[in-house]
Amino acid sequence: MEEEAAENIGRAFVEFYYNLFDNHRASLFSLYQASSILSFEGQRIEGGAEICAKLNQLPFDECRHTISTIDSQPSPATGGFIVFASGSLRLPGEDHPLRFSQMFHLLPASEGRLFVQNEIFRLNYG
Amino acid sequence: MEEEAAENIGRAFVEFYYNLFDNHRASLFSLYQASSILSFEGQRIEGGAEICAKLNQLPFDECRHTISTIDSQPSPATGGFIVFASGSLRLPGEDHPLRFSQMFHLLPASEGRLFVQNEIFRLNYG
Repeated sequence: MEEEAAENIGRAFVEFYYNLFDNHRASLFSLYQASSILSFEGQRIEGGAEICAKLNQLPFDECRHTISTIDSQPSPATGGFIVFASGSLRLPGEDHPLRFSQMFHLLPASEGRLFVQNEIFRLNYG
Repeated sequence: MEEEAAENIGRAFVEFYYNLFDNHRASLFSLYQASSILSFEGQRIEGGAEICAKLNQLPFDECRHTISTIDSQPSPATGGFIVFASGSLRLPGEDHPLRFSQMFHLLPASEGRLFVQNEIFRLNYG
């Protein structure tokens, strides 16, 4: 049951996150709190407002994520979840999609919701 | 200071883990506890003994990891750390290295040590 719950939450979160990112990027702020930390291609950004500013200032207005794998595990010490996604990212005017890996550490917030405490994004070169 | 501490711990852990994996794989058991969870290419394994059995039964005796990136963040709710590594893996008899991404959620154990609560490994195809 715990394994299934983690998998369901991982799938639901990944769908929610990348849909927001691709279609309503400014709405991502609802996922972060002041303690949140993002590492984006090695750049570290702390705080929900700063993270949203970074994501909304990326040098492309449109993108399309396609997800290949989702791994999700409970984080027993926190009541939260670890979610790891991989896939590809298509940018406007680019012929070839970029491969990426991204992980999220989701913690319980108020009212049964989850927020992103830790997030790490890396393009996969090679 | 907190950022630097996380980076130092991430680098030290990555060096320790992949050195053990490549040279003394049976010694990896010291990094896990009964609550540990590994997702290895989508297969979920729970428990330190089971994880070590899996890692030691992989169908290659020798391998060499080369690390390209290390991202490390504190996990404030736990006093632990999130470590995300990417790189390549060379197997005996294979001409081309395999690209991979791997994350670890490290939690405090006794005597100031850390153990691996969550670990997720994925080869990067594409």
